[in-house]
Amino acid sequence: MATQADNSSPKKEAHKEGASRFRVTVVGSGNWGSVAVKLIASNTLHQSIFHDEVRMWVFEEVLPSGQKLTDTINRTNENVKYLPGIKLGKNVVADPDLENAVKEANMLVFVTPHQFMEGICKRLIGKIKPDAEAISLIKGMEVKKEGPCLISKLITDMLGINCCVLMGANIANEIALEKFSEATVGYRHSKEVAQRWARLVSTSYFLVSPVQDVEGVELCGTLKNVVAIAAGLVDGLDMGNNTKAAIMRIGLREMRALSKLLFSSVKDTTFFESCGVADLITTCLGGRNRRVAEAFARNGGKRSFDELEAELLQGQKLQGVSTAREVYEVLRHRGWQASFPLFTTVHEISIGKLPPSAIVEYSNSSAQ
Amino acid sequence: MATQADNSSPKKEAHKEGASRFRVTVVGSGNWGSVAVKLIASNTLHQSIFHDEVRMWVFEEVLPSGQKLTDTINRTNENVKYLPGIKLGKNVVADPDLENAVKEANMLVFVTPHQFMEGICKRLIGKIKPDAEAISLIKGMEVKKEGPCLISKLITDMLGINCCVLMGANIANEIALEKFSEATVGYRHSKEVAQRWARLVSTSYFLVSPVQDVEGVELCGTLKNVVAIAAGLVDGLDMGNNTKAAIMRIGLREMRALSKLLFSSVKDTTFFESCGVADLITTCLGGRNRRVAEAFARNGGKRSFDELEAELLQGQKLQGVSTAREVYEVLRHRGWQASFPLFTTVHEISIGKLPPSAIVEYSNSSAQ
Repeated sequence: MATQADNSSPKKEAHKEGASRFRVTVVGSGNWGSVAVKLIASNTLHQSIFHDEVRMWVFEEVLPSGQKLTDTINRTNENVKYLPGIKLGKNVVADPDLENAVKEANMLVFVTPHQFMEGICKRLIGKIKPDAEAISLIKGMEVKKEGPCLISKLITDMLGINCCVLMGANIANEIALEKFSEATVGYRHSKEVAQRWARLVSTSYFLVSPVQDVEGVELCGTLKNVVAIAAGLVDGLDMGNNTKAAIMRIGLREMRALSKLLFSSVKDTTFFESCGVADLITTCLGGRNRRVAEAFARNGGKRSFDELEAELLQGQKLQGVSTAREVYEVLRHRGWQASFPLFTTVHEISIGKLPPSAIVEYSNSSAQ
Repeated sequence: MATQADNSSPKKEAHKEGASRFRVTVVGSGNWGSVAVKLIASNTLHQSIFHDEVRMWVFEEVLPSGQKLTDTINRTNENVKYLPGIKLGKNVVADPDLENAVKEANMLVFVTPHQFMEGICKRLIGKIKPDAEAISLIKGMEVKKEGPCLISKLITDMLGINCCVLMGANIANEIALEKFSEATVGYRHSKEVAQRWARLVSTSYFLVSPVQDVEGVELCGTLKNVVAIAAGLVDGLDMGNNTKAAIMRIGLREMRALSKLLFSSVKDTTFFESCGVADLITTCLGGRNRRVAEAFARNGGKRSFDELEAELLQGQKLQGVSTAREVYEVLRHRGWQASFPLFTTVHEISIGKLPPSAIVEYSNSSAQ
């Protein structure tokens, strides 16, 4: 078990110069984006198929010191605002100009809050290389009555390029500290492209497996937040590990069942991957959705999620409650509520229609 | 979601008298056995297909008060030694005579420590009804070089009767307090028989799903203990939820892969049931295997599992370490070690061949 991933050869081959190499740009520079840049920059230095330089589009901010965030990153190799104390790599270039950042890239990594993606894509139309490949690291999406707005589909539709996704049990700060973790790349057609993405981000402590199921992988990253609300309610009710495990299992079953109903190509085995069961475990053990839901149940549902979110999260946003509402609309629109008792109940608890204790009142007639 | 299980009709039908009804005997009276008796006794009272009385074979003990355990159970309706404070039901009869306890039963529930089962079966040969059906609630089994000694198979081979299994995320004391939980019945051929077992044990807070995969369901209950050792090591190394989720996921993958290699009939979907992912979560969050492994890692592997077990568990036994050793022998015997890095590493850590930190040093070449 001491084997290293094959991408950790210490020196880049000499013949690399002159060959056609993939140029990588990361669009986004928050906490998870900065960790992704660190992983990628450590690989592009040593693998001849990639150009050394990794360009990172940074939404420019002026720091309290009066300096610009991009200047500080380029001087210190650190994202002092969103990932302080971690060196990103000397081959990382922060760029505040979106168009300039992407213009030479043939590998585009998107990692921004999901609500910004439509605007970013609009700005990128006609500005990227036609042969570029994309990957989305964005967890969470809007779910409309007609179905979920997959970010990978948004990118493909607006920019006319292929888009993979990377999801998994990934707490950014733990990976920044090089603690062992895994992730899943979901792809549609080309395994070769997925394997290239895996090579770009894998390290000895970050193992990436490609799975041909882009919808299944991407939906996991959104639906798990609804289950985390349920798990937090169980914590707040002091029900114990037995009940929590049952609720997590039922949640995973409903994630799987809903994904398969929405996209017939979704595979059962995807939910055994890091994006499925592992991300669910991480999110239900820690995470802000779980935390606020625990507080909600401890207060007997008397203080709203909005109020507790404002108090506990200092400006960070909770996704589970809005996703639960959106999923509920889909279920109602299609007449599927009876098959998804957990998803339905999470929403009904969140709006005060049911008490928190309803989360453990199940019938046997739920989704298979 | 307010629907109740259909077995909770308040009054047993009058026409029941005279009809041929199933008589139930529970062989075993420990903590989990007593909880099973409570679940069963609440159902036999109200469902006309079952005879009211539930007989429980109790290995006779003399209590510190000088009274016999069976007499006390029959007088107080409580197993004062193994499940104090919980009423089992007035229709429960404790019987110290094994042959007498089983002679009229056509539903036999086995719930003893696994190492006693061979001896019990020997005593039962020729003493049970030929049309009896059995179910095993026994988690854990010996794994010989040639493969695992399934308790369900031992019962079928020695007694010539069909045997289902019941496994799941089941902490006995939490179910005794009627906290919401689930379980899985694994069956070989007859779904009708499995559904009868489900009716016998299901309540509004204990949901049971039948699955046609007796080997898969039963193996989960044993192999999860090896994964719990791995999870405990991660806890002791303070690696965080990310790493723990990854290790649990890899463990579940190896449980699934090994079960399928050993029994080609094993189904992937079994591992989504309570016996699979839910029991794994419960066992890796709490449980004695996890606890002792955490202490082992905190001591840097310098104090043996035997020593820590004696210190921490007050006479209770750890199963994960012996199962890991037995599984290792199977893997070595068949040349499968490279495909099962987690199982292999748990054993090599437990014998001091590798340090506890080896649990997170993985290659990408593991089991699919």
